[in-house]
Order: sequence, then C-alpha cells, then structure tokens
Amino acid sequence: MARYEGVSVSVIRRLPRYHRFLYDLIQSDVHKISSRELAERMSLTASQIRQDLNCFGGFGQQGYGYNVDALYQEIGNILGLNKGLKIILLGAGNLGMALVKHLSFEAKGFRMIGIFDKNPKLIGQKIHGIEVMPESALEEFCAKEKPDAAILCLPKDVVEELGDRLIGYGIRAFWNFSHYDLGLHHKDSDVPIVVENVHLGDSLMTLCYQINELNED
Amino acid sequence: MARYEGVSVSVIRRLPRYHRFLYDLIQSDVHKISSRELAERMSLTASQIRQDLNCFGGFGQQGYGYNVDALYQEIGNILGLNKGLKIILLGAGNLGMALVKHLSFEAKGFRMIGIFDKNPKLIGQKIHGIEVMPESALEEFCAKEKPDAAILCLPKDVVEELGDRLIGYGIRAFWNFSHYDLGLHHKDSDVPIVVENVHLGDSLMTLCYQINELNED
Repeated sequence: MARYEGVSVSVIRRLPRYHRFLYDLIQSDVHKISSRELAERMSLTASQIRQDLNCFGGFGQQGYGYNVDALYQEIGNILGLNKGLKIILLGAGNLGMALVKHLSFEAKGFRMIGIFDKNPKLIGQKIHGIEVMPESALEEFCAKEKPDAAILCLPKDVVEELGDRLIGYGIRAFWNFSHYDLGLHHKDSDVPIVVENVHLGDSLMTLCYQINELNED
Repeated sequence: MARYEGVSVSVIRRLPRYHRFLYDLIQSDVHKISSRELAERMSLTASQIRQDLNCFGGFGQQGYGYNVDALYQEIGNILGLNKGLKIILLGAGNLGMALVKHLSFEAKGFRMIGIFDKNPKLIGQKIHGIEVMPESALEEFCAKEKPDAAILCLPKDVVEELGDRLIGYGIRAFWNFSHYDLGLHHKDSDVPIVVENVHLGDSLMTLCYQINELNED
C-alpha cells in the first residue's frame, strides 16, 4: 500500500462517505460520473471533490469524469478495507450485541474474532456464530490471536481500567462506545494508539439543541 | 431561553462534551475548577475553553475559576435538555432496540413516546415499557402526539421514502442510523428540518485506515 503522507484527517474522514456513495452508484449500474454530478448527489462542490481525490493522485480524466468502479476500489485500498483486520468485542450487552448483528464488518475492513463479557448468563452463548467468552480468557486469547482492535461497549468505570490492560495485551486500536474519552490519557505514553470515540449521547444532545433552535424560528 | 446567535456549529458540538465532563466532576464532588484544570482533563487548551464558554456570556470569575454546578446547569439550559422533547423510534431491530435500552433519553433532553415496526412478531411487545406499534398507526399517532423527533433505524431503501412521509406528518428532526444521508435532498424544500446522521460504518472504516497507518510506522 502506498503511503499518503500529509493527508488531513478531515479528508480521511470523508473517504468512507465517498466509498458509500460510490457503492450505491455501482448498485444503480452507474459506472462513470463527473465531479459535478457526484458533487450534486453528495451535497459537496465539484472543486471540493476534485481537491479531496487529488490528495491521492486523482482518478478523474478531463472530459470523461470518474471511473466509478476503479475509484470505489481505490478508496477501499486507501482505507485498507481488504486486509481483514482482527477485531474483538468487549461487552455483549444490548449495544454490543446489536453492533455485531447490525454491521457488516467484512465490508468495513474487519473480521470479528472474539466476544467477551463477564456476565455468566452470556458466556457460552453464540452471537453470529461466535461464542461469548469470559473476560478471564482475554489475556491468553490476545496472546494467541493478536487482535488488531477492540470494540468497547462497557460501563465508563470499567473502561478506564480495562483500556490499560488491553494496551498491555498489545491492542492498539479502539472503537469506543463507553461514556469515556478513551485515549486522552494515553496520548503521552510510549505506545501509540488510535481511538474512534462514538458518543451517541453527545449526538443526541446536539440534536436536542438543533430542535430548540428550530422551534424558536 | 436566551438565543445564542452566531454561535458556530463546532462550538455547539463541543457543548455535550463539556456537559459530560462537568457531570463527572460533580459526581467526583468537584464544584470549582479553573480553565487550566478543565483544559487538562479534556485535552483542550485553557484559551479554547474560555473562548467556547465566552460565546454564551462566560461563567468564569477571574482568579476563582468556574462554578461547576452552575456551568453544568447552564450548558444543559443552552442545549435545552430540560424540555422533554418527544421522540419516537422507527425500526425496532437489534440496533433500535439497543438504543432504547442503552441510552438515558431523559438526561439528553428527550422522552421516548412511541416505537414502530412492521415486523408482526414485534408488534405488541413492550420495550422499556413502550409497546411496539405497527407502521400503519404512525399517521394517527403523529397527529395526536406530535413527536418532535424520530430515530431512524431502518434499511436505506425504506428511509428514502419514509423520510418524506414523516416530514408530512409534521416531524422536523431526525436521528438517523440508516446508511443514507437523510436531509441532503430536503435542503431546498420549504420545510426546515434538522438531522443528525450517525454513520457507524464510516467510523469503523476510519478506524481501519488509522490502524493501517499505525502498522506502517
């Protein structure tokens, strides 16, 4: 994989959205599109699209537009979706369980390889063919399977402590749904980690603000 | 409620996070904090914090710091969390069900008042004390109860069509988990709507990219 030095985080954050729209185009049997047309569909400007995609060398041909299939493939390569990174879930409560059932991990670059919980009622149950294991099995599992990432669907107080343990077990990437900003206090440590914090509550409160604004107009 | 004209969306998006950290401080029995200390906890700069909070008049006193309880209360007021906005859920599958069970809507400004699905097996079941109703009951329900917002946990193709129907029923705000950028094609319509799109898959793909970057270092 080629490196894309100096590409800003905001461009990277837009790539999955391009990937999603391009996938839809392919599903609708559209295989060629101009930056203007794509911009219209995505509510961006054509120059924004050209700028974004030029960061990676650009895939458009003047007067022809973009080859949708090639661009879809290439964005997938840039994101590294073809590598089957190994991911585990910690916390098989309502939300954790729903994520495993709801998302197509394979299409997003991951293979779900292990689910852990401390609730004895859940241990041994199968979710999408994967048996729920006790947290006590975590260390051995990580040593053997070397997961690339962990999804955290745990109470805040558990995550604070477990985060450090998981880093100790060699996990460097976290998809965190707990009400805790994981990563803040590991920033200065020697071990580089990456974190996507998903704060659903924050999103809901933002919506609340927007509704109140709307109601006042 | 006072209006806060001209406050940027990025400031608004940071308010829920302040609210969360202030709540934690109160739980830890901290009732006074300097912008420097708060900045450290939140991995922001003190001047960033002062700037953000000054948008709303500022709550700090020189040489004293912030009154945590008053600031928490005021941010809650700014967000309008005390209004008990009425919200309904469309799609009581794994994810929808998990959201209803997992989140404390009341603390985030909302009251969950109705759940709808078209799966006959789910209809009549109770989730957190709320009976799942058939989609055919939606119009009457909306006319009577006037929900402020709808959570959309539906397949993409359903949302495209249902979004318009819901706007027709008077709903103006959407918390959208479907793989579809709701709102893009209503932008120019006469009816103003607000949307929070939560694209979990995009977040997962961004994590994938970051892991690949990390592995190459």
